[in-house]
Amino acid sequence: MPADPRFFRSIGPLSLGELAAATGAELRGDPDTLATNVAAAARARIGEICYYEGKRPPAADAISSEAAACFVREDFAVALPDGVDALVTPLPRHAHAVAAKKLIQFRDWGDVEAPHEATNIHPGARIAPTAHIGEGAAIGDRSIIAPNAVVGPGVQIGRDCVIGANVSIQCALIGNHVKVYSGARIGEAGFGVMPGPAGAEDAPQFGRVILQDGVTVGANSCVDRGAFDDTIIGENTKIDNLCQIAHNVVLGRDVLMASFAGISGTVTVGDGVQLGGRVGIADHVVIGDGAQIAASAGVFREIPAGETWGGTPARPLRDWMREIAWVQKQTSRERRKS
Amino acid sequence: MPADPRFFRSIGPLSLGELAAATGAELRGDPDTLATNVAAAARARIGEICYYEGKRPPAADAISSEAAACFVREDFAVALPDGVDALVTPLPRHAHAVAAKKLIQFRDWGDVEAPHEATNIHPGARIAPTAHIGEGAAIGDRSIIAPNAVVGPGVQIGRDCVIGANVSIQCALIGNHVKVYSGARIGEAGFGVMPGPAGAEDAPQFGRVILQDGVTVGANSCVDRGAFDDTIIGENTKIDNLCQIAHNVVLGRDVLMASFAGISGTVTVGDGVQLGGRVGIADHVVIGDGAQIAASAGVFREIPAGETWGGTPARPLRDWMREIAWVQKQTSRERRKS
Amino acid sequence: MPADPRFFRSIGPLSLGELAAATGAELRGDPDTLATNVAAAARARIGEICYYEGKRPPAADAISSEAAACFVREDFAVALPDGVDALVTPLPRHAHAVAAKKLIQFRDWGDVEAPHEATNIHPGARIAPTAHIGEGAAIGDRSIIAPNAVVGPGVQIGRDCVIGANVSIQCALIGNHVKVYSGARIGEAGFGVMPGPAGAEDAPQFGRVILQDGVTVGANSCVDRGAFDDTIIGENTKIDNLCQIAHNVVLGRDVLMASFAGISGTVTVGDGVQLGGRVGIADHVVIGDGAQIAASAGVFREIPAGETWGGTPARPLRDWMREIAWVQKQTSRERRKS
Repeated sequence: MPADPRFFRSIGPLSLGELAAATGAELRGDPDTLATNVAAAARARIGEICYYEGKRPPAADAISSEAAACFVREDFAVALPDGVDALVTPLPRHAHAVAAKKLIQFRDWGDVEAPHEATNIHPGARIAPTAHIGEGAAIGDRSIIAPNAVVGPGVQIGRDCVIGANVSIQCALIGNHVKVYSGARIGEAGFGVMPGPAGAEDAPQFGRVILQDGVTVGANSCVDRGAFDDTIIGENTKIDNLCQIAHNVVLGRDVLMASFAGISGTVTVGDGVQLGGRVGIADHVVIGDGAQIAASAGVFREIPAGETWGGTPARPLRDWMREIAWVQKQTSRERRKS
Repeated sequence: MPADPRFFRSIGPLSLGELAAATGAELRGDPDTLATNVAAAARARIGEICYYEGKRPPAADAISSEAAACFVREDFAVALPDGVDALVTPLPRHAHAVAAKKLIQFRDWGDVEAPHEATNIHPGARIAPTAHIGEGAAIGDRSIIAPNAVVGPGVQIGRDCVIGANVSIQCALIGNHVKVYSGARIGEAGFGVMPGPAGAEDAPQFGRVILQDGVTVGANSCVDRGAFDDTIIGENTKIDNLCQIAHNVVLGRDVLMASFAGISGTVTVGDGVQLGGRVGIADHVVIGDGAQIAASAGVFREIPAGETWGGTPARPLRDWMREIAWVQKQTSRERRKS
Repeated sequence: MPADPRFFRSIGPLSLGELAAATGAELRGDPDTLATNVAAAARARIGEICYYEGKRPPAADAISSEAAACFVREDFAVALPDGVDALVTPLPRHAHAVAAKKLIQFRDWGDVEAPHEATNIHPGARIAPTAHIGEGAAIGDRSIIAPNAVVGPGVQIGRDCVIGANVSIQCALIGNHVKVYSGARIGEAGFGVMPGPAGAEDAPQFGRVILQDGVTVGANSCVDRGAFDDTIIGENTKIDNLCQIAHNVVLGRDVLMASFAGISGTVTVGDGVQLGGRVGIADHVVIGDGAQIAASAGVFREIPAGETWGGTPARPLRDWMREIAWVQKQTSRERRKS
């Protein structure tokens, strides 16, 4: 998926030769091929550039054969699919980020000098005068934008939504009947660092947030946008206050998430999952449909559908409870003996 | 306690016959009785409607005999007190919420088109021009409302208060010498879902937040309003940043609550209790006066007054420490043997 | 370090005699000596007053011999360095706070009636019209202040910074290339209570926040200002969403801090330390360079440089894992026997 032009303005195209020059990468391919946008390697299409930075050679489907070019280290340059030109560099992700800035420009907080000029606001929407609506944002009928809320450029908000006070939203597509309570942060850059020539740098985040119909996001909760793909919150999922949802997370439908629950990057959570308060899930973990996770659990691996887990590191709740009871029994026995 | 007219505008009354028609409930009683407001079942008064959705028949004092009518399932319709008409429906809470919308209207973020028209602001208060003050809000002498703060309609704020930047407050009564640091959220709807005809829905929240004199609420902390009754923070209680206090919680006086502490719905915390950082308390738990809870504890049951607990699930701190030490001793012994 | 006049306006000087009268303290020294500001006891200089409230006599370097005077209890009044006058009172910190209010005045949220009058904004900075810029704040070239952000009086922001939507900043000095994502709170008063004549009171916080070059602070995270000294975030340190950094914390360079990590007051964290999600660190703890702390850990004591720790209370990760595995083995063995 390429960067959405509603959130990233196209300022290209540039030729691969120009991108090689701009990044110091060595091009092995046609310098006249035009690049227009960036994408995740597995889903890059014609005219899109990507990068590969794994420790092993790329798997068969890791890099789309449609990609115009791929930033890659010397050792894997020969492992790219046929037709994908190599841009060889010791820091592929960093060079890709540099190239991205030549092709697309983040609309950040909009043309900050000219707020409230949105043209796609339904007359039935109620917008507080102190709210800021970015250029090109759209707001549907009967939706409320509360005082001092900030809706970034290009954000799409459906009907019957409530966007609370001091909320900020960027890079997001929001369905109908969605509630975002006060102070929630939708679409911020996810937490990702990449090696740069002078140490770690923030990895740019090109994706979006999708809040499907009926989603509720609690006060001061955060839903980061995806790195390339989208962070998706499924229909009717209910998120309490002070929760964190990182980039590229996919939450199913009817998920319940209590306060302080935190989901790391690229986690997938099935439909109807229930997370107790303070539950944390490590990155890339998969939680099966209907699983229940007890409050305070720290989840480091997959939870099968329908199971109830708890503890840190999380395990089946029954096991965790048995372990606690056993230790308590042993120690109270020792105490009696002494 | 009925919904406070400062936060919920009366748009009734309606007759029980009209409410039955609007909700599809079957009325067993006088269709001409007038209903004006909603209330918690145990405290409903004349003209107020309520609901009962328990799994067992209602206890003797669960439903006030003054209530005009009660939404209830068929099986418990006969168990209502004398004089309380039954509105029989398979989804009592949902039908009650539908009826509530016919009787009262949430003043949400105020008449969003007309900010800063408050008439009850003491001339000695200092209000930033970018702050939003809802209709009917009152602000006392020497209180400061910082830039971009949002004070919802009807909110009452006493003397010598500091309301920080980007704070939002609704449905709240605030005493004197109260400090609400930047980004705190006071009075948002609590996290509650109820079964609806097409899946879970957000349960409406009709209550308030009371911050008594001398309370301090830290930056980006959240205090939700009650479902029907009030969420109450007692005098001189001090809450750190990024804390969560759910609906209907009652905190005593002089409570100290460190960062990331979270208190679930309907918890009662006694006077002088100290909660370390990241302490979580499960819903409906009671914490006795003067109890101390060690950082990171997850509390799932009552803590007696004056005790010090820790661990997850929380237990007396001494027991928890002994268990940890015992396991460490066993495993270091095993290691030496091998 | 005295209170910074950019954030605390000088309204003194007052003589020690006047301060004794204002606080009810008994002065043992020259009533005509002038006091101009407050400072931490160990670093007070000429004209600055401090307090000492320890349980034992002050250590040799606990109180600077340059201090004009020190609020102190009767029992340690004779233990002050030569030349430091004693202001004897049963509540030294409280009396000191009362005296501080006579010498300096917090610029709080600025002259709230007159926003956006800053004179030190580089023409190359982009400031949203709905942002609030306090008196005397400075903003460098190419920095962006997003809509509804609040920059307090006297705050210094360097070049190429991004201050997100609804951010608030006070009492802070911010370098170049710093990003503060939406809803973050920089420079709020730290959480500290002191005994007062009628119970606990918020201890005043006179310090600052320093964000060095290249720091990123995630959405809705909080960095409190120091009590007297500064809270310092080292170069290129990256902080995720919903993190908490308390007063007087010193974070090194290139620290990575995942969501919900919380650092209590006066903690020192070395360069290159990595904190997983939900890690909590108790106050005054020291974390050595390059240490790694596993997600969910609760750290109550020093972690040596380069080590990897986990669990609550935190211990070397290997030990914690071994303990968990051992308990699991024992309990599954018991289960098989039964």
